[in-house]
Amino acid sequence: MRKVGFIGLGIMGKPMVRNLLKAGIEVTVNDINAAAVDEMVAAGAKAAATPRETAVGQDVVITMVPNGKIVESLLTGDNGILAGAAEGTVIADMSSVTPTESKHFAELAAKKNCPFLDSPVSGGEPGAIEARLSFMVGGDEKVVERIKDVFDAMGRSVVVIGPNGAGSVTKLVNQVMVNLNIAAVSEGLILAQKAGADPKKVFEAIRGGLAASQILTDKAPKMFNRDFKPGGTLAINLKDINNVMDTAKALEVPLVMTSVLQQIMFSLKADGHIMDDHSGIVKFYEKIAGVEVKTKEA
Amino acid sequence: MRKVGFIGLGIMGKPMVRNLLKAGIEVTVNDINAAAVDEMVAAGAKAAATPRETAVGQDVVITMVPNGKIVESLLTGDNGILAGAAEGTVIADMSSVTPTESKHFAELAAKKNCPFLDSPVSGGEPGAIEARLSFMVGGDEKVVERIKDVFDAMGRSVVVIGPNGAGSVTKLVNQVMVNLNIAAVSEGLILAQKAGADPKKVFEAIRGGLAASQILTDKAPKMFNRDFKPGGTLAINLKDINNVMDTAKALEVPLVMTSVLQQIMFSLKADGHIMDDHSGIVKFYEKIAGVEVKTKEA
Repeated sequence: MRKVGFIGLGIMGKPMVRNLLKAGIEVTVNDINAAAVDEMVAAGAKAAATPRETAVGQDVVITMVPNGKIVESLLTGDNGILAGAAEGTVIADMSSVTPTESKHFAELAAKKNCPFLDSPVSGGEPGAIEARLSFMVGGDEKVVERIKDVFDAMGRSVVVIGPNGAGSVTKLVNQVMVNLNIAAVSEGLILAQKAGADPKKVFEAIRGGLAASQILTDKAPKMFNRDFKPGGTLAINLKDINNVMDTAKALEVPLVMTSVLQQIMFSLKADGHIMDDHSGIVKFYEKIAGVEVKTKEA
Repeated sequence: MRKVGFIGLGIMGKPMVRNLLKAGIEVTVNDINAAAVDEMVAAGAKAAATPRETAVGQDVVITMVPNGKIVESLLTGDNGILAGAAEGTVIADMSSVTPTESKHFAELAAKKNCPFLDSPVSGGEPGAIEARLSFMVGGDEKVVERIKDVFDAMGRSVVVIGPNGAGSVTKLVNQVMVNLNIAAVSEGLILAQKAGADPKKVFEAIRGGLAASQILTDKAPKMFNRDFKPGGTLAINLKDINNVMDTAKALEVPLVMTSVLQQIMFSLKADGHIMDDHSGIVKFYEKIAGVEVKTKEA
């Protein structure tokens, strides 16, 4: 029977564990949040007291936590994953971290002869719940093949981009495009609003053309209907954009628009909007333009 | 029989005239380019010597020219459209101009009791050829209804956004989103390239998720396959972005990203890339990052 250790039972982790269990996989979980552990045990998982115990006897150990510092703390030390994992156990970090961090984790795992995969996801909470996540993987393609059933239990696509770090890079590229597309929609709609054109009508006129995007479809209605309930929060996106800019600094690649977007997100955080849906980027534009994006039909 | 005057036989105008003729509409054309006029006459159109003559006895007069200054020169003066148009003739300007210009044209037309529609299009040359343009209209909805058959001959959707100017605003909003989406794709792919990840693999991993856009689908492959044959040229997009920024200045709405994009386009023009496809925006990033976006598979 396939055996998986899973650490990180948040918004993403819990539904991912449920889908692993649904696929008949034996799952051992660990988290600092005892209530989340109890919930997963009730769903059929086993509980382990430490990351080390979580890793004992597993085929794969998955980490799904907020940032790279936490991943590092889970991997290392006497109670860490690498202290418990047998040679050959695959370590798959599904968190959003920087490629530099992913390469470092791969080196740590290699010392224990554990193959490492940086395999961040896209698809968000709905994708996690409905087992249709997309995995962007850095690491050995043969290792991915070996545990393909584990990915398949949680998602619908696995693309191996390149060596360790390439999965994390791809997630960052995704976040650059997602967040700049939100800025693009925001900037367009604030222009419409300021010019006196109903943003909903403008949306309907252009949504099927070259301006079409998943963000336009999903987020423009949230903006002009004043619905900023998350979805993905600005907090998560700021973390990712910070990772993008840290990576851009390490690579010395000038990201003209994203660097401005980071400043915009700092401003949104200062204004208390950080737990809004990421469509809340429009609120920065509303503040500096002195007008709210809102359909007249509402 | 429905009668239409049509001025402006460029890349867009010629296929639009062909589709009007195909729908059984009587079309009288005018252009400074005699060869284009001859081509349309061979296709079944009548030729007029001046804008004034083009407007005589028509239900609708359409202008489809590069900018607002040309529209104004066509409308006014002894040989202008308004000197020839009878009361009630609809003037439909399908050029990309600023909303301020559209409102001014509407006022000029109103003096002759001619209803004016600012009705710019999206869909580009392929949309014009295949009669699937989208019209974004500012003006009286009843007037649009009255000449709906004329729009239907050339396009597949007509959305009336609001009073005169609202059509032109919508086109500008469209161009903000389109061009910022190109910048988003460029910025993401340059990050991938600089990090050593194959941009084609990254594209394949993220194209179905929240980063999905028509621009990502259409333009990323042009970038990593080094194919900058237009499509829409940067020259046309710069004209539109200049109209956006002129309008933003008139409205005093701060467009943080688009203002930067305008500078990027100036730089691309200075470097001789202005007749490239608008996916050539990536060349600015390539220049400042010192690396070319290119798939290893090519």
